Amino acid sequence: MGIELHRKVSKLQGLSAVRAQYQPRVPPALKVTFAVRLARFWGIGEVDMCGSVKVSVGDASATAELSDRLAVSEAYPHTYGLPLVQLMSSGGPNATTAKHLPLRIGVAFCGRQSPGGHNVITGLFDALKSQNANSILIGFIGGTEGIFSQRTVELTNDMLKDFRNQGGYDLLGRTKDQIKSYQQIKDAKAACEALKLDVLVLIGGCGTNSDAAQLAEFFLESGCTTKVVGIPVTIDGDLKNQFVETNVGFDTTCKVYSQLISNICTDALSAEKYYYFIRLMGRQASHVSLECTLQSQSNMVLLGEEVANSKMTLFDVTMQICDAIQARGEQGKNYGVVLLPEGLIERIPEFRALLQEINTLRKQDEDIGVDNISSRLTLWAAALYDFLPIFIKKQLLLDRESDGSVQLSQIETEKLLAQLVDTEMIRRTKTGLYEGKKFNAICHFFGYQARGSLPSNFDCNYAYTLGQTAYYVAQAGLTGYMATVANLKQDVSEWRCGGAPLTAMMSVKRWLRGPGVSQTGKPAVHTTEVDLKGKPYGLLTQHASSWLMDDLYRNPGPIQYAGPGADLTTITLSIEDNDYIGEIQEFYAYLDKVKEIVKPGCAGEVLKAALSSMASVTDILTAMSAPSYRSLTPF
Amino acid sequence: MGIELHRKVSKLQGLSAVRAQYQPRVPPALKVTFAVRLARFWGIGEVDMCGSVKVSVGDASATAELSDRLAVSEAYPHTYGLPLVQLMSSGGPNATTAKHLPLRIGVAFCGRQSPGGHNVITGLFDALKSQNANSILIGFIGGTEGIFSQRTVELTNDMLKDFRNQGGYDLLGRTKDQIKSYQQIKDAKAACEALKLDVLVLIGGCGTNSDAAQLAEFFLESGCTTKVVGIPVTIDGDLKNQFVETNVGFDTTCKVYSQLISNICTDALSAEKYYYFIRLMGRQASHVSLECTLQSQSNMVLLGEEVANSKMTLFDVTMQICDAIQARGEQGKNYGVVLLPEGLIERIPEFRALLQEINTLRKQDEDIGVDNISSRLTLWAAALYDFLPIFIKKQLLLDRESDGSVQLSQIETEKLLAQLVDTEMIRRTKTGLYEGKKFNAICHFFGYQARGSLPSNFDCNYAYTLGQTAYYVAQAGLTGYMATVANLKQDVSEWRCGGAPLTAMMSVKRWLRGPGVSQTGKPAVHTTEVDLKGKPYGLLTQHASSWLMDDLYRNPGPIQYAGPGADLTTITLSIEDNDYIGEIQEFYAYLDKVKEIVKPGCAGEVLKAALSSMASVTDILTAMSAPSYRSLTPF
Repeated sequence: MGIELHRKVSKLQGLSAVRAQYQPRVPPALKVTFAVRLARFWGIGEVDMCGSVKVSVGDASATAELSDRLAVSEAYPHTYGLPLVQLMSSGGPNATTAKHLPLRIGVAFCGRQSPGGHNVITGLFDALKSQNANSILIGFIGGTEGIFSQRTVELTNDMLKDFRNQGGYDLLGRTKDQIKSYQQIKDAKAACEALKLDVLVLIGGCGTNSDAAQLAEFFLESGCTTKVVGIPVTIDGDLKNQFVETNVGFDTTCKVYSQLISNICTDALSAEKYYYFIRLMGRQASHVSLECTLQSQSNMVLLGEEVANSKMTLFDVTMQICDAIQARGEQGKNYGVVLLPEGLIERIPEFRALLQEINTLRKQDEDIGVDNISSRLTLWAAALYDFLPIFIKKQLLLDRESDGSVQLSQIETEKLLAQLVDTEMIRRTKTGLYEGKKFNAICHFFGYQARGSLPSNFDCNYAYTLGQTAYYVAQAGLTGYMATVANLKQDVSEWRCGGAPLTAMMSVKRWLRGPGVSQTGKPAVHTTEVDLKGKPYGLLTQHASSWLMDDLYRNPGPIQYAGPGADLTTITLSIEDNDYIGEIQEFYAYLDKVKEIVKPGCAGEVLKAALSSMASVTDILTAMSAPSYRSLTPF
Repeated sequence: MGIELHRKVSKLQGLSAVRAQYQPRVPPALKVTFAVRLARFWGIGEVDMCGSVKVSVGDASATAELSDRLAVSEAYPHTYGLPLVQLMSSGGPNATTAKHLPLRIGVAFCGRQSPGGHNVITGLFDALKSQNANSILIGFIGGTEGIFSQRTVELTNDMLKDFRNQGGYDLLGRTKDQIKSYQQIKDAKAACEALKLDVLVLIGGCGTNSDAAQLAEFFLESGCTTKVVGIPVTIDGDLKNQFVETNVGFDTTCKVYSQLISNICTDALSAEKYYYFIRLMGRQASHVSLECTLQSQSNMVLLGEEVANSKMTLFDVTMQICDAIQARGEQGKNYGVVLLPEGLIERIPEFRALLQEINTLRKQDEDIGVDNISSRLTLWAAALYDFLPIFIKKQLLLDRESDGSVQLSQIETEKLLAQLVDTEMIRRTKTGLYEGKKFNAICHFFGYQARGSLPSNFDCNYAYTLGQTAYYVAQAGLTGYMATVANLKQDVSEWRCGGAPLTAMMSVKRWLRGPGVSQTGKPAVHTTEVDLKGKPYGLLTQHASSWLMDDLYRNPGPIQYAGPGADLTTITLSIEDNDYIGEIQEFYAYLDKVKEIVKPGCAGEVLKAALSSMASVTDILTAMSAPSYRSLTPF
């Protein structure tokens, strides 16, 4: 304790100072007195916990894939199958308002910085102090490193005031790495015990929430009483599942990138001489690129998921861009904007193979370099490697990420594509296939300039609500849960707060490739890719050709904090069907109705019709849930 | 006429649509009925022109440098020495409100796109139509190219409605080049005559306004009746002089860049592992980099003017950065943000010499390449060239700008410096001079992503006011003028509109270097560099060491269009003493006062004191205006 905070001088100015005064909006469940209880439809009994909080024990949750349930339940015997919970206002003014017992809660930024992260902490802090002024919030300095080494600071209102609604993770600094070793798990337990933590809250993406699940399970297993709660915070927006509609930071970063992309579209249309190739963040999933395309209506986007799905080679990708340039050139348009995610390169099959070979070689020999690597690659990989421009060759051999993989943010895929396209357009010009103007490319990487942004109203509200939710979930004694907020596309007043077991979000990856990799991975919360059958992608395909040809650019402008549009969220969120909890409720209502009709004493024909209908429903759902059926669906 | 506009489908959405409805604020002079007349202090007579407009003929203007006056007056015999003019409301409700005669005005975007440019056109259009619905505004497609080839479109309210308060130049497209040849001047005249233009308005920076002056002079000389008016619009903010306080677009672009830089500062402080090297636009002057540093309070900036003034070599610049990194490392800080303008490289003496040699060689031989250039450079230049990393070598030989110079935007100076710093830090580590963590750099170029931005309220108001002002200046029959707005740091209600002769902004460059370059350049409106004695630079030097060491980052956030701070302008503008016209007025008031005291009949001692005082004042001012004195001042 007692370590100094990063920002020594409190000098918020201008808009930052105005934003520090913003009071995030929270849904009704968090507005009056609070109660954690299982939603009515789960509930078969209610247990009075403490004060006004009620917890109902209901149906257990499960993984989405039937085939993963065994593996997850074996790996997580103590935390698999826990029920979903929902927060609900405990009722009118007469509800019990007894305060909670004081708690000691620890919190750490465990992923990469994402706008809104600070608000998770302020939401947690405000909820905790509102229930008991003697509760204590302890921040770990530097994420997991801070947990292992017990570098902490007790957070006070005074410390937090300059971080309310601010971007970045500079209150505490962020983690450098995921939890990797058994020793680190033991260190984390030792820290929780030494600090007498009732709760540990981890803020981050898929990796962080997998870590949270692992710690929760280990703590239960080894008799440590600290509860663990995860919060879904990542700019990539790829922690998506039945319980999680979007992640804190995705809204803000997409808006910042879209502002810049749209500016560049306007620039392209004004100068009429350049093709802009813009690489965006998004390693394993292309949600950011998709949302930015929907926002800016730029000419073209190459989603990693599309490329992987249609097994496009580097040559195919190049040709696709060249064909687009040629078509535009024939209409006298020699400019345009092409977006791509940083993860694109990994999704091109032959590149993926090359990257895997390089990763393996690098693990064996750190001194491998541009000059000596080619002879050690397979023939196919070497052919691709030798074909690449020197700057890409070098970038492929740069320092690794903490997980040993290539630093994709350092590989200038946009320049590689621009160069390949240039070569091809020159060839087409020489052979008379293309008669338009010379192709000119300008390349940009929009990466780090959005992560530290002042969060949007949506991210401020969402993060703050998650922070408060995490408190009530943890206070109810639940562990291995993620704080969740559902119905996010509606106004804050209609949001529903709750908790979902982390194990219910897990899956097992199979058929991994490469030497030394086992056939079946460990259960984890995995990234969710862009759904090529989903509505956001459908919107893109519906407009792709007109956006390509007709320059229907749209400029959403910079993030506004007041005035019209200040509370809008992403297009992705607003058009997705993601009211999972709502639909589950609707389903239970149907069951109730059917039970109401088919009671002892009902007419024989009614019972017969009910039996045959339910048999048919059961058959259909069984068939649809079988792994064989699910793998047969397109994409 | 009749050429289709670029944006075929009108589909402004969200914030863009909201902004299209914004009504720019204009100063009082433009609010009621209008009159152009010389400010009181210039006036010795008033000539009734038409309707309510009055023009007073007063004192002549002159260039700032005495030594330039002869050269400019010889080159511009018809347009040198014209008076300043000011727009003034013609008085109360009883003022004459007779409408103007119909005019035909042509307008072109002649510089690089700058946010607010469209508002110059809408301001011009609204003023022109308000005075006579039969007046016509003709837009040239593609800037000067459109003028030469008479590609035009008649602008209507319906066409303009989607471009009000929008960024970019996509209404008409922009120029590719400056006016270069006598043939082009004749083509411009032919266009003005064929289209029967009363007025030609050119929108752009120094080059464009030099072109405007040249056309105005040539038109008068050759009997063409079209008047020419220039508008100061450039993101670089380097068209600054006694009459021009800032340029349209500077405010918006600095705010967009500052938003991103500040986000990156927050990112640096959160991750604590990277040094960010960020290159910004600004070729001949570093105003953008200076303003962004004042806004973001990032750790370090390398202004071109500083480097040139202190004659720093590439080695010196590298060492300065390394020393800063070392000092921070000793405080445990292994991260930071370093800004530099794209023009930096040209201001490093040995680089400047190398660039000039390459330019000359390229003119002689287009096929010169990385492999064969070294032997054709001088020894000194070759030594530097050979020392450079291969990516910079290649970039130095890329396609030229339209003026034949190196495309600075394509030279990744930030990567060059990062690489040199990396090498030096490794050397210091090996020799034990530096014991901190490994230096990690991430490079960014913030260029094209701001030019197309939705303009800030300030730029919307300023551009719109300039457009209206241009109309009244032109309508008064003035040619060779720039529309000007003074007192910009005050509220719009205190702005003063007028016109200043372009020749009064001209200067002559001497002592140019390089083969084939004459010793004295042609008179032109030249870029103004950052004043190393000015207040904005003073603010930087005052805080430089604390900003370097203490991470006093400031996040101004994205541009806001409503709410607190929405009407703030740049720090540069707000702290500069730029009320030139106001001070001239004050000066005239003193003269009046002295004349009032010293009248025939005043006491003998008073007259004597007046004589000796005025003799002394005259001596001082004469000495201070001499070129020898001015070149002796520091910097």
